[in-house]
Amino acid sequence: MRFRSLRFATISISPARPKTLLHLRRFLSSSIAARIPPPMAASEESLRQALAEKQSAVDAQAHAVRALKARPGGAAQAEIDAAVEALKALKVDAGAAARRLQAALSNNGDGAAASSREAFRQAVVNTLERRLFYIPSFKIYRGVAGLYDYGPPGCAVKSNVLAFWRQHFVLEENMLEVDCPCVTPEVVLKASGHVEKFTDLMVKDEKTGTCYRADHLLKDFCKEKLEKDLTLSPEKAAELKHVIMVLDDLSAEELGAKLKEYGITAPDTKNPLSDLYPFNLMFQTSIGPSGLSPGYMRPETAQGIFVNFKDLYYYNGNKLPFAAAQIGQAFRNEISPRQGLLRVREFTLAEIEHFVDPDDKSHPKFVDVANLEFLMFPREEQLAGKSAKPMILGEAVLKEKSGVPLVAHEKFPEPREVEKLVIVPSKKELGLAFKGSQKMVVEALEAMSEKEALEMKATLESKGEMDFHVCTLGKTVSIMKKMVSISMDKKKEHQRVFTPSVIEPSFGIGRIIYCLFEHSFYTRQSKAEDEQLNVFSFPPLVAPIKCTVFPLIKTQKFDDVAKIIAKSLTAAGISHIIDITGTSIGKRYARTDEIGVPFAITVDSTTSVTIRERDSKQQIRVSIDEVASVVKEVTDGQSTWGDVMWRYPTHSAAHTEEE
Amino acid sequence: MRFRSLRFATISISPARPKTLLHLRRFLSSSIAARIPPPMAASEESLRQALAEKQSAVDAQAHAVRALKARPGGAAQAEIDAAVEALKALKVDAGAAARRLQAALSNNGDGAAASSREAFRQAVVNTLERRLFYIPSFKIYRGVAGLYDYGPPGCAVKSNVLAFWRQHFVLEENMLEVDCPCVTPEVVLKASGHVEKFTDLMVKDEKTGTCYRADHLLKDFCKEKLEKDLTLSPEKAAELKHVIMVLDDLSAEELGAKLKEYGITAPDTKNPLSDLYPFNLMFQTSIGPSGLSPGYMRPETAQGIFVNFKDLYYYNGNKLPFAAAQIGQAFRNEISPRQGLLRVREFTLAEIEHFVDPDDKSHPKFVDVANLEFLMFPREEQLAGKSAKPMILGEAVLKEKSGVPLVAHEKFPEPREVEKLVIVPSKKELGLAFKGSQKMVVEALEAMSEKEALEMKATLESKGEMDFHVCTLGKTVSIMKKMVSISMDKKKEHQRVFTPSVIEPSFGIGRIIYCLFEHSFYTRQSKAEDEQLNVFSFPPLVAPIKCTVFPLIKTQKFDDVAKIIAKSLTAAGISHIIDITGTSIGKRYARTDEIGVPFAITVDSTTSVTIRERDSKQQIRVSIDEVASVVKEVTDGQSTWGDVMWRYPTHSAAHTEEE
Repeated sequence: MRFRSLRFATISISPARPKTLLHLRRFLSSSIAARIPPPMAASEESLRQALAEKQSAVDAQAHAVRALKARPGGAAQAEIDAAVEALKALKVDAGAAARRLQAALSNNGDGAAASSREAFRQAVVNTLERRLFYIPSFKIYRGVAGLYDYGPPGCAVKSNVLAFWRQHFVLEENMLEVDCPCVTPEVVLKASGHVEKFTDLMVKDEKTGTCYRADHLLKDFCKEKLEKDLTLSPEKAAELKHVIMVLDDLSAEELGAKLKEYGITAPDTKNPLSDLYPFNLMFQTSIGPSGLSPGYMRPETAQGIFVNFKDLYYYNGNKLPFAAAQIGQAFRNEISPRQGLLRVREFTLAEIEHFVDPDDKSHPKFVDVANLEFLMFPREEQLAGKSAKPMILGEAVLKEKSGVPLVAHEKFPEPREVEKLVIVPSKKELGLAFKGSQKMVVEALEAMSEKEALEMKATLESKGEMDFHVCTLGKTVSIMKKMVSISMDKKKEHQRVFTPSVIEPSFGIGRIIYCLFEHSFYTRQSKAEDEQLNVFSFPPLVAPIKCTVFPLIKTQKFDDVAKIIAKSLTAAGISHIIDITGTSIGKRYARTDEIGVPFAITVDSTTSVTIRERDSKQQIRVSIDEVASVVKEVTDGQSTWGDVMWRYPTHSAAHTEEE
Repeated sequence: MRFRSLRFATISISPARPKTLLHLRRFLSSSIAARIPPPMAASEESLRQALAEKQSAVDAQAHAVRALKARPGGAAQAEIDAAVEALKALKVDAGAAARRLQAALSNNGDGAAASSREAFRQAVVNTLERRLFYIPSFKIYRGVAGLYDYGPPGCAVKSNVLAFWRQHFVLEENMLEVDCPCVTPEVVLKASGHVEKFTDLMVKDEKTGTCYRADHLLKDFCKEKLEKDLTLSPEKAAELKHVIMVLDDLSAEELGAKLKEYGITAPDTKNPLSDLYPFNLMFQTSIGPSGLSPGYMRPETAQGIFVNFKDLYYYNGNKLPFAAAQIGQAFRNEISPRQGLLRVREFTLAEIEHFVDPDDKSHPKFVDVANLEFLMFPREEQLAGKSAKPMILGEAVLKEKSGVPLVAHEKFPEPREVEKLVIVPSKKELGLAFKGSQKMVVEALEAMSEKEALEMKATLESKGEMDFHVCTLGKTVSIMKKMVSISMDKKKEHQRVFTPSVIEPSFGIGRIIYCLFEHSFYTRQSKAEDEQLNVFSFPPLVAPIKCTVFPLIKTQKFDDVAKIIAKSLTAAGISHIIDITGTSIGKRYARTDEIGVPFAITVDSTTSVTIRERDSKQQIRVSIDEVASVVKEVTDGQSTWGDVMWRYPTHSAAHTEEE
């Protein structure tokens, strides 16, 4: 499988300082949710202009007719009739202009095309939910917005995609994988800036208290106006389109001002809206029994990598570049989750951090990929309302260089004298005092900040002992003077100290999977032409089930053969299902096409069987002994269907697809 | 790989009613944390008795000596000397008895054995942390107790274990896998009983506020008394041992009374303790922006399966038995996390629910396993202070039958007239009113409880419309009378209605992994006998890295060969590392033995190389073309090392292990 583009991945480049990361995110980003309308077509602009002119001609003529009718003494009937005729003609003209504009809007993808896209999407989603690829969570308790359960086929697709992701990135590139907890203490997310900045702007319905994302309201308002209000002046239409384009870059003040300017109210009740205010998207909780340690569910997995940087760097032999990766759950308490798997409150994130020397970003493998072409969507293109465009990787990097400046890496001239905090716990004394807990007390002492250490030094010098909270033990211990030595030493630094830069590709697995679903879905007519049949054309690598086994008719001897084949498929590690319901073979094919099973084995004899390929519906005949290895060959990607078609006889008397 | 026992899995049997599940958990359970001491050995009891007798003889003689010395007029010196001599002899006797008791306690696993076990464990944990198998989370911020990061080798082991678990259970048994969110609305966990009952009993240090688990304090007190207080009477010792055995079954009142009776204080400060009170172990949070929807991080994954029962049952063709499985994070805000990966605040749980017909629990595959022997630890054995014991599965099941009664399954005689709530949303009206949101409104209406529906019916009849909160939309909509019909219909039930029983095997993956680490660890002397070298003897299936590639000496031609081999290993999907540091080959072997790499390829020529097996240190010589396929064969488990040893020449001039 090859992902068609990086549409659901974000890549950020920044120095590895947690605080600055948040602001530099989404250097390159794109998503269906944020798809930006194309710039106003010339024809649309001229059509809006034409309609406005026709409409003012109508207004002027209507005024003239009223004036004629109201003339003292009365105008001649013939004169009035002529004016009325002229008004009718102008109205016909204006109507035609309105229809042309409407048609143009539809062709722009905002009207009929959008509604057919919506119908397609609805068909995909209905199939996905009906076949339990995913379903809204906690349905039997009326559900919670933005949380989804993956059912058996969805789970299998997800696990296939993750296995491939791990193979493609982590194993192939020897990345260092880590797996860190979701529960995160506040101190970590304060340092990364999330506690202060990880917010969306929210407004409330002043009467019902219902919450809305301010930018969603503004965007929805603009889109609806553009689609439905044909009397918009070309200038106003251009303004609304511009607002949509720059939506993500509006400040809180600008966003609030626009909501007021356009008189936007709560969409469901039309009630007035509150002022906007920031809402932190992290799920808050409390760690430990005391209630005194605030924590959050991580909003991304990157922090787990950053806090381990020193250990990972050591693990890599203190050499750059290296990459670390993490797959895990992330949590965002979205104000208004939307669009199924695309904007949810909990999701599986796969993130990579490439740590590179800011002065030497060369990568040994870059030459192998420099000439590949990718679909990219640079920030400038996004802001200009343009579409994503194909770019040669090497050229993009030459460009990607003049982009965001690589902020502040610290570099000291060398050798240079620096003051260094030196904390030396006495392992002997601590061992005597704390026995098995010694190690954790030592680590907690060594982890003190300069401020904490100097305070401890002062207290120990004046009082001889001090209470010290050891988080890893969950308790407070008493530290005596003899247990630790704290000093500020002057030291010559001989090595360059620098902050490595970071390249962060980040993959929302749910989004990739949804994209895969939408790209793989198609419908085709049943043989009797009385039904639309759904098909997911998953490649074998991601298909939830690789193969089905059907006895053609319900008889013991075919059932026995089916079981023998199932056993050999299990031995070969091929996920499969066996369907001995005896339903018509056409219905059984349709049922498995709908969950994207690439191959179906039909047992119609006790010596050989047929294998049918899902999309072409072609069948070949293979002996029972060989069938598992043939299926393995094509699902593992060692051979294509074309290869095996060539080697085995085509089964011409194909089983009827629909009976 | 075969897990040596189900020591870290719990199995529960119960009807599939979430409310009753919690109480029936841990039917069979065991963990290192809860390992129960063996019953008091007869020798221990008699030794305590003997010591007590000797001690009272000492006391009596000491009293006699004091009386002689204090006799008015004074006793004869000879008489006093004789009495003192007798006292000395008795003291020697008593000392010997004390040593015999101490030795017996050590042999019982409570003394020296425990301390050597502790030393072994410390060696394992030190190696695991140093090589980044896992490390305390957020170390650079001083950490949080009970949260761990898996570093690169730990992550790889975890992912191998999970892949094997999925292969062994989910794929092999055609289980239905689901993947549900961790964030769970309160209503779900109220219904399951967790909000009310998922608690541990806690006490606080009355001065510092430090929190302790009440049962831990009692257990630690009893263990310390038993280990260190040699003057305990045999009766008292027996009492303390009994308390440890029944610890899990003490009521809050009994536990509190014991703490008081024994005068237990805060272990670190000796301050008095508060009364005990229940502390809910779930991490609480709030879902959505309103702050009005409480939620929790799930404390187990089972609920996600239960709430989807109806859909999964349908997916399985409305047939029992079937099994559903889920792998995912679970969260428990432990009062005092302990013992590394064994009791943590966030962990990966793999749970299975077998749904079975309570009247017909036969399983087609049972006959294949009925004669297997397993190590089991039934509740009665736990309470009696006995050890786990091997049992034949078939016999255990015949026994496992007379165990916990299978509570209340509902069965109606048939046919029978029942009243049924019928909710029929008008899709047409709802479609007109809510367009794209129609489906979610329909689902929310259909999901109403009987009480809610009847309230809505009354409101619609009196007022004609009603506000209705649709959680999946995150907002309140207005429902008109024409949009939904609600009625109570009388209906004849023709089918048996019953609550399926549930068998729940539950696997804490971190515990399994830790167990694997401990079982795999050993040390051996370096060749020069100057060092203890650590080895993890992981089977290839779970080894974090399958193979290393070392050029014997640093030269371009060997490096080139190493790279060619690395490429062929990548193509064969074998995780490996290449070490061209040029460190002595012995050191490189030791380094990879310590992370459990089973095979090392040493490049010492440009045509053939050696493969060394980690535990036996045997080496064979294999041509460069074949090396990847040989390694694949032994890591995939198609051949054993013994098989390939037989096929390839042994490399006799073995590379020195340590230079």
